[in-house]
Amino acid sequence: MPIDSETSAGNGTGHTEYGKNAVNGLKKEEEVEKSAVKKLTKEHDLVLRTFRLLIADLCQQFNGGHPGGAIGMAAIGIALWKYVMRYAPHSPDYFNRDRFVLSNGHTCLFQYTFLHLTGYKAMTFDQLKSYHSDRVDALCPGHPEIEHEGIEVTTGPLGQGVANAVGLAMATKNLQATYNKPDFDIVSNHTWCMIGDACLQEGVGLEAISLAGHLKLNNLTVIYDNNQITCDGSVDLTNTEDVNTKMRACGWEVIDIEDGCFDIEGLVEALNRARASTEKPTFINVRTVIGLGSAVAGNAVAHGAAFGAADVANMKKMYDFNPEEHFVIGEEVRRFFEPLPARGQELVQAWDAKVKEYEAKYPELGAEFRRRVEGRLPENWKDLIPKSFPEKPTATRASSGLVFNPIAQACNNFMVGTADLSPSVNMIWKGKVDFQNPDLKTTCGITGNYSGRYIHYGVREHAMAAISNGLAAFAPNTFVPVTSSFFMFYLYAAPAVRMGALQHLQVIHAATHDSIGMGEDGPTHQPIELANLYRSMPNILYIRPGDSEETAGAWITAIEAKKTPTIISTSRHTLPQLSLTRRDGVAKGAYVLEEVEDADVTLIGVGAELTFAVEVSKELKGRNIKARVISFPCWRLFEAQSLEYKRNTLKKYRFPSVVIEPYAPNGWERYASAAICMKRFGHSLPGKAAYKFFGFEVGPMTEKIAKYLEDIKADGILHQEFVEL
Amino acid sequence: MPIDSETSAGNGTGHTEYGKNAVNGLKKEEEVEKSAVKKLTKEHDLVLRTFRLLIADLCQQFNGGHPGGAIGMAAIGIALWKYVMRYAPHSPDYFNRDRFVLSNGHTCLFQYTFLHLTGYKAMTFDQLKSYHSDRVDALCPGHPEIEHEGIEVTTGPLGQGVANAVGLAMATKNLQATYNKPDFDIVSNHTWCMIGDACLQEGVGLEAISLAGHLKLNNLTVIYDNNQITCDGSVDLTNTEDVNTKMRACGWEVIDIEDGCFDIEGLVEALNRARASTEKPTFINVRTVIGLGSAVAGNAVAHGAAFGAADVANMKKMYDFNPEEHFVIGEEVRRFFEPLPARGQELVQAWDAKVKEYEAKYPELGAEFRRRVEGRLPENWKDLIPKSFPEKPTATRASSGLVFNPIAQACNNFMVGTADLSPSVNMIWKGKVDFQNPDLKTTCGITGNYSGRYIHYGVREHAMAAISNGLAAFAPNTFVPVTSSFFMFYLYAAPAVRMGALQHLQVIHAATHDSIGMGEDGPTHQPIELANLYRSMPNILYIRPGDSEETAGAWITAIEAKKTPTIISTSRHTLPQLSLTRRDGVAKGAYVLEEVEDADVTLIGVGAELTFAVEVSKELKGRNIKARVISFPCWRLFEAQSLEYKRNTLKKYRFPSVVIEPYAPNGWERYASAAICMKRFGHSLPGKAAYKFFGFEVGPMTEKIAKYLEDIKADGILHQEFVEL
Repeated sequence: MPIDSETSAGNGTGHTEYGKNAVNGLKKEEEVEKSAVKKLTKEHDLVLRTFRLLIADLCQQFNGGHPGGAIGMAAIGIALWKYVMRYAPHSPDYFNRDRFVLSNGHTCLFQYTFLHLTGYKAMTFDQLKSYHSDRVDALCPGHPEIEHEGIEVTTGPLGQGVANAVGLAMATKNLQATYNKPDFDIVSNHTWCMIGDACLQEGVGLEAISLAGHLKLNNLTVIYDNNQITCDGSVDLTNTEDVNTKMRACGWEVIDIEDGCFDIEGLVEALNRARASTEKPTFINVRTVIGLGSAVAGNAVAHGAAFGAADVANMKKMYDFNPEEHFVIGEEVRRFFEPLPARGQELVQAWDAKVKEYEAKYPELGAEFRRRVEGRLPENWKDLIPKSFPEKPTATRASSGLVFNPIAQACNNFMVGTADLSPSVNMIWKGKVDFQNPDLKTTCGITGNYSGRYIHYGVREHAMAAISNGLAAFAPNTFVPVTSSFFMFYLYAAPAVRMGALQHLQVIHAATHDSIGMGEDGPTHQPIELANLYRSMPNILYIRPGDSEETAGAWITAIEAKKTPTIISTSRHTLPQLSLTRRDGVAKGAYVLEEVEDADVTLIGVGAELTFAVEVSKELKGRNIKARVISFPCWRLFEAQSLEYKRNTLKKYRFPSVVIEPYAPNGWERYASAAICMKRFGHSLPGKAAYKFFGFEVGPMTEKIAKYLEDIKADGILHQEFVEL
Repeated sequence: MPIDSETSAGNGTGHTEYGKNAVNGLKKEEEVEKSAVKKLTKEHDLVLRTFRLLIADLCQQFNGGHPGGAIGMAAIGIALWKYVMRYAPHSPDYFNRDRFVLSNGHTCLFQYTFLHLTGYKAMTFDQLKSYHSDRVDALCPGHPEIEHEGIEVTTGPLGQGVANAVGLAMATKNLQATYNKPDFDIVSNHTWCMIGDACLQEGVGLEAISLAGHLKLNNLTVIYDNNQITCDGSVDLTNTEDVNTKMRACGWEVIDIEDGCFDIEGLVEALNRARASTEKPTFINVRTVIGLGSAVAGNAVAHGAAFGAADVANMKKMYDFNPEEHFVIGEEVRRFFEPLPARGQELVQAWDAKVKEYEAKYPELGAEFRRRVEGRLPENWKDLIPKSFPEKPTATRASSGLVFNPIAQACNNFMVGTADLSPSVNMIWKGKVDFQNPDLKTTCGITGNYSGRYIHYGVREHAMAAISNGLAAFAPNTFVPVTSSFFMFYLYAAPAVRMGALQHLQVIHAATHDSIGMGEDGPTHQPIELANLYRSMPNILYIRPGDSEETAGAWITAIEAKKTPTIISTSRHTLPQLSLTRRDGVAKGAYVLEEVEDADVTLIGVGAELTFAVEVSKELKGRNIKARVISFPCWRLFEAQSLEYKRNTLKKYRFPSVVIEPYAPNGWERYASAAICMKRFGHSLPGKAAYKFFGFEVGPMTEKIAKYLEDIKADGILHQEFVEL
């Protein structure tokens, strides 16, 4: 221990000095005098100094990383982890724990360091020091990652965490409304979300904030690390709005903390007030100083670069630490955090006992609650899917409803939402109840409550997907969130869909109106290139079913993919029920629909255009051209099959093969030698007319394919190039 | 003319009745009595009724479309087109015209119908009736499209239009500050943006609103069609915030219009007040009734479906029109709009004269203004690019600065912005001035003015791209907007980037930190699959240059692509200057860097990993394996080359070919037989370590390729499948 805490902290001179330094240029001196610095206990003072120097050292070590924010937020961290949050370092997955989301994920050292100090076992001192190292198994990546102990969600892309936190808080609300009893609050956790200036600029954050206020999520607190600094300089370069008024207008309670660098007492009080809020989510606006104590305090430079050895040494001198020593965590600081694991285990034991009592008193609900905690669906979910479908032509968006709505009705793991397209996406089941604040009665006469599982997200696709990630992250498969919108608007949602895939969160996206068949809405709504994003994205299934039977296969696959999100991409328009489609075929990604000996060509049909492949094969037969037909709903599922299966299905090098899909063809080269595809954006025409305009009619397609096969025959070999017919 | 306007409108009974009907359930009757309905002139009343029935007929005709919003907004339209907006139907591209953006683009009939009534020549009566028809050359697509007369931007995906309008207003501000003189306001236009409830929910709209308030764009007015209805029902299902307070907190002036269905006088007054605003953008909150007059007025059903023949007939009866007649526009109504083309031409002539005077008095500025109006860059722009570069290794993000900053400095067409990554993206030129409200002085001491051309967008990537579309749409190439951020965050911006590509707007996106070489920030920041979106998207160039020379080629290509946006995708880390790279090679998309007779393999290098291909080819030489090397910065440019050029470059069927790129490989199958690529999300490690972790090191890559070639030899033929090595 390099410092004499009696002399350094007892009279307050040490910290008054760095207090002054810190707020240089930001506050007047007399304000500092009145600040919380004077009230700081010597213990808190020591922990703050230790923490801040640790951060400086951790960044200096490999000369990189984000020190400033974490340093500015030190007091907030102490208030949270020592005094307010309910969690169990030795049972990191304790079900009823408070959830903490670091939406400003670049300040990850803030969280890593508190995880270490509070006794999370995985976060050893050694691991803590791996930040920005080339250690491959480091638990301290550049942004927090859900895979690691004590991390609730992966963050980094700004604004996402706010929406995740909204989802986590909604999960709690739903469980409470479903399972709590007057004498048993078996779910009672709070969600805390730390944000920076940027999270209040990103649209996804603003969408989520607006919805959280509407939903009156009083179990959610957003803590704003208001350091007024972003990469480019002071925030007033780009944002001069009255944030508190804006938050109040959005239905939030607002609490100001003037001296967030030191006022631990004020912070604890504010956080406790937030937890006790009965009506609204709470926004705590905490004024902090980025890089406090460094020479670049209050400056954008403190954000994303180590301070330099000299500056760190100076910080240590000013803080009465030995500049020659690094990563110093003294005994007193260790003792300060020491009780936390035991306190956590008490919470766990008390909760376990409470749940046992609950199960005894409410055996049925108790068993169901247990099932949810363990992330299981009711055993019989698959029996709810129709074994067959009426023969009448059906849009696959309607098939989605036929397949999934009975499951959603019966299995309360599913939270189903829509970005304001209820009439189009067919995700409403019989007797569905909206997830709403129970006091709400809308002008259109609709009510709901927190046990409701149908979520009106508003026209907020991005927040919908990010909130769904939060729902899914609450506990593995306790919730299986379903989102719905037009496929095109999964471009708005894409950053959040990606985060779900990266985090192995099971979220099912019911994307309707795919392909140009969606018609009149035109090129702004016709997804020509979007499939390529999702077909290339790791750990997500993009499935285009061709009829009701395949739609059943898509949903079964999606529901069974416990660690992978799925996009089920369906048509607006009616499609014939094809006689040879198979739900188990979908699970293999592609399968032979019609086999022919000595074929002349393989036709690959996909989703809404599978029927074209079937029709064209008949037409070709009339011309004495023998066509195999493959249904190919999902690339990734197909890639997972054996080489033998893949070769037997495709037979690519035996026969020419033509895929029919009104999308950009890129990537189909792997599976086909030619494509009838889109070479430009779409066009506003009724669905059939749009197909016709772009050549997706049976006659012209048959003609093109016959011509293509003739060309090949004339050449004697397969064309050298992949051909866009 | 089916109605007797004297009796139907003179005493007000007709409209009082439908006024009551309209607000049924939304307002009390006594409020209706006090409403503007009573003040309505018979002329306005007739125009309103005619307009509303036209919309109902236009949707009923093909039984589809969006009637409700357009009907509700009728009075707003009259106020705008008849009384407030400055425009010239017979000179639709008149430079100083007011810009009108229909952000709620699904209400396009609103705009189409006013274009027709006010005398835009292209919008014939026949064309107007093409809405939702299968007419291929229709000017009435399902959402407004920039290609057509009188349409400023293509809209549809909600929220985009708000941001476009912010860009249009910024364009005006910049031109005013650059060219106007106390005695010559040669640019004086106003931007009007119509929005619906959804535009206030979408993040991109909220981002743009926040920035517009900050920038004090007093030349921007957003008119909120506050009908409190979205597809799912009443807006209070999802949004109960206090929108006026929120807008004021964001720095906007707010005006309320209580009776927006009829109060033309109040609307005109409000719009004129908005135009006269000296300090702030204006938000006019107009209470309307969706589908006014129909049986489903005020109901979500009125939003996106025709009313049905019976309802339309009833509307006509109530409006004293003949239910048997359709598409009726009486003489009186024609006369009402008749003077507008002439009025418009007067504006045009007065402006032409003013500009001539200006050119005489300020010849130099005048010539420059003319150049800008004509969308030309200074002739010498290409001379500003270095002919060669220092040999020292340079990150291509730095090369971007070397190439482009002198151009940006010298050519004032360029408006360059960043989503808060100024220190990382190297887009600051010597002497750059920020585009800011001139009264602003930030706490970090920075000032700017409206003639500044460097835009701090804040952490608002989506709005950045959408606002840039607005800047570009002001007039063809008068502005060439440049955006900048990490490549990964062009996923946030993607919906707007897409809209730019769809609209043929030249916007250049300087995307840095591409590939896993960006390092520690980890998988949330490492773009693995995003290139596939942009490589598949029509009309956009995604270019990955390999060194400074290729970066020069990328910028030249981007600047010359007058009708196409470009993403220039650069590295965070330093790259060697390669001796054989050629800027003119980039323009061809791919070119042979090193040719070899009787090659064993073709190596394809891309962007930051081109250097790997060169290094690996040397290593292979040591093993007596002869490798050709191709640099392949851009697929789309390559696809535009002749078949001969493509075959001579690739020689794909003569030699095996391996592409080296740490992205998802999908689509490379067209050009290569194997890939060293990414099969999963990235990993948080320092750049070099990340490359190593995923096998992107010269030694292991050489080994893999040698093995691959051996396998092929053993088989005697090329592998049947594209191989991920």
